[in-house]
Amino acid sequence: MSVTHPAGFTAAGTSAGLKNNSAGRTPPPRDLALVVNTGPTYDSASVFTANRCKANPILWSQEVVKNGVVRAVVLNSGGANCYTGAEGFQTTHAVAERVAEGLGIGALDVVVCSTGLIGLSNPRENLLKGVDDCLAALTEDAGLDAAEAIMTTDSVAKQVVVEGPGSGAGWSIGGMAKGAGMLAPELATMLVVLTTDAVVPADELDTALRAATQISFDRLDSDGCMSTNDTVTVMASGASGITPAIGDFTEALTRACTDLAMQLLKDAEGADHEIAITVLHADSEADALEVGRSVARSNLFKAAVFGKDPNWGRVLASIGTTAAAFDPADLDVAMNGVWVCRNSTPAEDPAEVDLSDREVSVTIDLKSGAELATIWTNDLTHAYVHENSAYSS
Amino acid sequence: MSVTHPAGFTAAGTSAGLKNNSAGRTPPPRDLALVVNTGPTYDSASVFTANRCKANPILWSQEVVKNGVVRAVVLNSGGANCYTGAEGFQTTHAVAERVAEGLGIGALDVVVCSTGLIGLSNPRENLLKGVDDCLAALTEDAGLDAAEAIMTTDSVAKQVVVEGPGSGAGWSIGGMAKGAGMLAPELATMLVVLTTDAVVPADELDTALRAATQISFDRLDSDGCMSTNDTVTVMASGASGITPAIGDFTEALTRACTDLAMQLLKDAEGADHEIAITVLHADSEADALEVGRSVARSNLFKAAVFGKDPNWGRVLASIGTTAAAFDPADLDVAMNGVWVCRNSTPAEDPAEVDLSDREVSVTIDLKSGAELATIWTNDLTHAYVHENSAYSS
Repeated sequence: MSVTHPAGFTAAGTSAGLKNNSAGRTPPPRDLALVVNTGPTYDSASVFTANRCKANPILWSQEVVKNGVVRAVVLNSGGANCYTGAEGFQTTHAVAERVAEGLGIGALDVVVCSTGLIGLSNPRENLLKGVDDCLAALTEDAGLDAAEAIMTTDSVAKQVVVEGPGSGAGWSIGGMAKGAGMLAPELATMLVVLTTDAVVPADELDTALRAATQISFDRLDSDGCMSTNDTVTVMASGASGITPAIGDFTEALTRACTDLAMQLLKDAEGADHEIAITVLHADSEADALEVGRSVARSNLFKAAVFGKDPNWGRVLASIGTTAAAFDPADLDVAMNGVWVCRNSTPAEDPAEVDLSDREVSVTIDLKSGAELATIWTNDLTHAYVHENSAYSS
Repeated sequence: MSVTHPAGFTAAGTSAGLKNNSAGRTPPPRDLALVVNTGPTYDSASVFTANRCKANPILWSQEVVKNGVVRAVVLNSGGANCYTGAEGFQTTHAVAERVAEGLGIGALDVVVCSTGLIGLSNPRENLLKGVDDCLAALTEDAGLDAAEAIMTTDSVAKQVVVEGPGSGAGWSIGGMAKGAGMLAPELATMLVVLTTDAVVPADELDTALRAATQISFDRLDSDGCMSTNDTVTVMASGASGITPAIGDFTEALTRACTDLAMQLLKDAEGADHEIAITVLHADSEADALEVGRSVARSNLFKAAVFGKDPNWGRVLASIGTTAAAFDPADLDVAMNGVWVCRNSTPAEDPAEVDLSDREVSVTIDLKSGAELATIWTNDLTHAYVHENSAYSS
């Protein structure tokens, strides 16, 4: 139970023969997912990758979401349908048409998402046959099937359920996500479908979704690489008949997004550590984010964490590349709570920093204001290099 | 013969016991170098790291170079003397004073450079004893000793000689460099000393040096990490008595800098490939550089090159993160001359791209103007992760 936990949604996840199955798995791996809002309302909101090189499904779906109505999301793994030309766009269109035909709705209410290798065309006949299979398999129990079907290099399916606040709130949020590499949103860098049975008009959904993604997926920077395909869509069925306070709904949606973002972080390709970089006393939130991201993108720092080396010099070297407000002679840095650098000079003994756990915290005090922010990243490991050099993905 | 090839320079390279010698090498590794301009002129120019977190030797040397006169450069490996506080600055000052005393000059004519681990204080007594040893060892034949003394993770000493143009020009340029990691200038990301026996006033030296570094060291982006310590200093002794045309001198200096930059690229930590990313038909040189650098900083692309996978999708995904002028639907990309992507769709067969050689070219046609630029980088390898996780450096 995940995207189908809230009332008013069905889902399916089947195999359309898109994913490589050279291992000969029986049954073959699921690679096509469908999530359908059965109403009574069809409000929605979406955010898409900020990458200017966008995949065909993004070009299609950006048009679909404009009127705030989405009735279904169809997602495939096994190929990103990005830079595949007019033929690729026609494939996306054909998939949306087939979903719409099966559901008796309009194709312009169907969001399409694809993930996999860029430049790879998916066989259209496989996709259309898969859509038919999904339509036949739609149930309120197939949330996990759908979540499995969108996995690429993910090692686990990622799902979330958040209940409305208080006892008997009567509404909930469900979600699923995929993403393990090319993970540096701004916005979105993965495929995420969120559902709710609350009654939330499309414009309020949009505000809530942007607020939620801004402090969850947008603060994830696993490998500094922004994808061409990524999409976050939320659909509200209104099936609970309950209209929550927008503050409560935004808070619940933020919890759902943050939970999924942390699942993405923990499953990042080849990672040994999850690293939270918190920047304190920044002059602005933008400064805090710039400093946090600069450290998150330092291969030298990330390799040091992999080697369990509390190399705070590499943290300072990264901070120094930013335009943020700070005094280079008055920076404090802690790793796992040990203040290894105070006033830009060595302080507590780095040998006291134990980096054997997966979770690592880096705290940077800029002493320049009242703002703060956290960026999450992973370490740079042999397994990351292996996974991204040995396989096209 | 390198920095001592031009007339008017002596050098030395000795061991001051700064570098770890747990291997018990006899004699111990050289780690202190001195290059002295014996005149008759002492014109100079320097560029320093753009990193705002600057090491103590940078803070010192930036004052030294202001009047255009430098008579000696003293350089140590085994510790960066960065973020070592007031004590560290006093060490830098003491080293300059000892060099000045030995040469009978002023300390404010002595550039100091250090490289090694950030946050590590060098033992001052070792440094001062080492300076005395260097002073005693100064000769016109010790250029290689000096080049070896500044190596850190470098596997080879890096030197260059460029003769003035034409037969019997009568003047030349010599140089040495170190640098293998934390290699993403803007400006400078390594230690470089250049010498010439040409007569070149300090202001012209400055113009020539900035022109030369801008299209050599500044276009090198091995691992996206900018150092805190790096320095390029050129000294003109005037010992040849010849005043070259400034165009000839700038061209020769650019050749020397480019030669050293390519030596740095080829010796980058753990690299298997040298990658030249050339961006054609950009609307501005800045656009070409932004696009080239975005690809050079894509870990996914760099890991793919290591795996000999011509994954042009990762090139397009990087281009899309920039603000450069281009049409996302009309990009061409070649790898090693094979146009794998034309008009943003798959073109020639990627299987034709042979990535077995160390040298790889990526050509991107933005079709948006008349400017072009090349950025040089390396692939992301297991050896890079190993070298930067297993050792503090």
